Amino acid sequence: MKKIAILGSTGSIGTQALDVVRNLPEEFSVEVLAANSNVETFAAQVEEFRPRLAVLADEAAFKVLRQKKFSGVELAGGRQAFVDAATVDGVELVLTGMSGFAGLEPTLKAIACGKNIALANKETLVVAGELVTKSAEARGVKILPVDSEHGAFFQCLQGENPRAIEKLLLTASGGPFRGKTFDDLRNATVKEVLAHPTWNMGRKITVDSASLVNKGLEVIEAKFLYGVDYDQIQVVVHPQSIVHSMVEFVDGSVIAQLASTDMRLPIQYALTYPRRLPSPVKRLDFWQLNSLTFEPPDVETFRGLKFAYEAGKAGGTLPCTFNAANEVAVREFLRGRIKFLDIYDVIDNAMWRRPVTQNPTLEDLIAEDSETRRLSEKFIEEEII
Amino acid sequence: MKKIAILGSTGSIGTQALDVVRNLPEEFSVEVLAANSNVETFAAQVEEFRPRLAVLADEAAFKVLRQKKFSGVELAGGRQAFVDAATVDGVELVLTGMSGFAGLEPTLKAIACGKNIALANKETLVVAGELVTKSAEARGVKILPVDSEHGAFFQCLQGENPRAIEKLLLTASGGPFRGKTFDDLRNATVKEVLAHPTWNMGRKITVDSASLVNKGLEVIEAKFLYGVDYDQIQVVVHPQSIVHSMVEFVDGSVIAQLASTDMRLPIQYALTYPRRLPSPVKRLDFWQLNSLTFEPPDVETFRGLKFAYEAGKAGGTLPCTFNAANEVAVREFLRGRIKFLDIYDVIDNAMWRRPVTQNPTLEDLIAEDSETRRLSEKFIEEEII
Repeated sequence: MKKIAILGSTGSIGTQALDVVRNLPEEFSVEVLAANSNVETFAAQVEEFRPRLAVLADEAAFKVLRQKKFSGVELAGGRQAFVDAATVDGVELVLTGMSGFAGLEPTLKAIACGKNIALANKETLVVAGELVTKSAEARGVKILPVDSEHGAFFQCLQGENPRAIEKLLLTASGGPFRGKTFDDLRNATVKEVLAHPTWNMGRKITVDSASLVNKGLEVIEAKFLYGVDYDQIQVVVHPQSIVHSMVEFVDGSVIAQLASTDMRLPIQYALTYPRRLPSPVKRLDFWQLNSLTFEPPDVETFRGLKFAYEAGKAGGTLPCTFNAANEVAVREFLRGRIKFLDIYDVIDNAMWRRPVTQNPTLEDLIAEDSETRRLSEKFIEEEII
Repeated sequence: MKKIAILGSTGSIGTQALDVVRNLPEEFSVEVLAANSNVETFAAQVEEFRPRLAVLADEAAFKVLRQKKFSGVELAGGRQAFVDAATVDGVELVLTGMSGFAGLEPTLKAIACGKNIALANKETLVVAGELVTKSAEARGVKILPVDSEHGAFFQCLQGENPRAIEKLLLTASGGPFRGKTFDDLRNATVKEVLAHPTWNMGRKITVDSASLVNKGLEVIEAKFLYGVDYDQIQVVVHPQSIVHSMVEFVDGSVIAQLASTDMRLPIQYALTYPRRLPSPVKRLDFWQLNSLTFEPPDVETFRGLKFAYEAGKAGGTLPCTFNAANEVAVREFLRGRIKFLDIYDVIDNAMWRRPVTQNPTLEDLIAEDSETRRLSEKFIEEEII
């Protein structure tokens, strides 16, 4: 049995990961569950999976949780307990299912303790790609991608020499606004943004998907996971979301991974790797499948992708700046305080204003994240609202 | 440098294999060239590649070749010399590019001598799948498929556990007659049959492609190469011939291999395996690519596929019967002596009439091949013409 910790267990990735565990009860022992503040869901998970340790980051939520009794389960609360949850002795694999910059510190801690990482928190690699890949290499830790696209790359690269990669073909559904013009998007509502045509995901990533910022984050993530240059990563819009990404090799051959849109598949692959085990995921039926189409992304309208390439190529702290500005902008968009297209202006402003520090330490990144948040909040208050 | 022998060097596969060698001159030493009767092309190949041994199977053609001088090249002629060409000392890899049942004996000889096989002669596996796979296993010989579809499976299975295969998805272009009805095909001409929409191949295989017999041969070939059951092989019509085949795994994930329709790619992969090396093959451009479509094959009209499943499932000598009847029928169709749909009747007749012997020896297969040819020629003379 593989001993695992699931951080962010009440989120979209966490709940689906627990569904994978439920389907393969002989394979996993859930040693640690950690979440932010959703007490009700969390308590039910603790009841069902009986981890050794259960942590809620939010102090108030923890106080509610503490009222309950779970025999054999140690309970802990607070931000530091959440970070420490990644380091528990005996755990072999940590699934990082929490979202945003907050995922960086626990992930680095888990790596430092030699835990393999099933990485769903893409911000970790975007913000601190070099730190993370270097420390993973130094500790001999495996980073197993959970994103459907990076999971696809990972599967396509099994048995291949990474030096034979010519290009990574990163597919994008195009989101709910594919084909829309700048004018169409001026008054896009939160509801429209959240109506993703193919994937059912968390709110933050669904907004990022509509703005193509998510695809941009994935470009940077891919760069660090597979050690290619940015010029070797091509985004291809594929509205059906059946091909989850592809690798082109130096001989002109392309290997692709296809599946139905069910996150349990890449999650399970990361958890069971290097084995493939049976899963209840719906099979593709090629006799019924209609057509698969491909087209270039509209990077003039959906500027999120262009910003990401710029940030990635500049390197240093700029991807952190890009990510922090976007996190603030999406939060304010979801609160109804700014419009959809304002997200781009918030990012653009931060990327113009913030100086770039090369080879940042974790402290530099934490500082850059705070600075950008402050700057972006100020920009929103003063220039947008 | 890998020391190779190319059997059938003047055919479609052979000439493209030599083009691969031309593009990667540091990688290969061509030790042996062997062909049937095309003296002119063969002499030019011998002149350019200077093999240690050059063989023409056809005695008359050999007499013409013998007039020429190639310093340092041993010349030999006749059927036995062709078979022996597969066994030359020092050769590591034999590419079997000749077509039809005639490829079986040299392939078995090469395996007995411990040579790895780049297998383009699919009849070898169709007719003698068990003999071939058993002797390859016993000698620790690798069978590297050159067919674009089986090369695709092979690539998709790199780094994977074959026991995790759920299904092989064998793609088919559908050939020039896709969508046609039985009535449409009654008077199909040789010219129409040879106008393949996506692949430029030899004449025999192009006819087989139109009748779906080729896809049937590939089903049997796949069965032996990958050790699956016939129920695990699903033929999917994909008219664009971009996806060259796919593997579905037990977790529901599908890995596919895509490339432009250029046989040099699977040939090169078989020759350079396990490495991928640069190739001039045209890259796929997913930004320009239109749609990829998939549909079920019409097995009622194109009975070749149904016969193949029947022959494969019955096993023993029946695949040999199926193949021999088809070889005779295609030859007579290309000579203009029978109609396109008669091919199916010739196969059907042989499969009804010939008894099935299980676990056939090479001698049994040679006898079955002769018997079926005699029977089928007689059927054509007496019942069709």
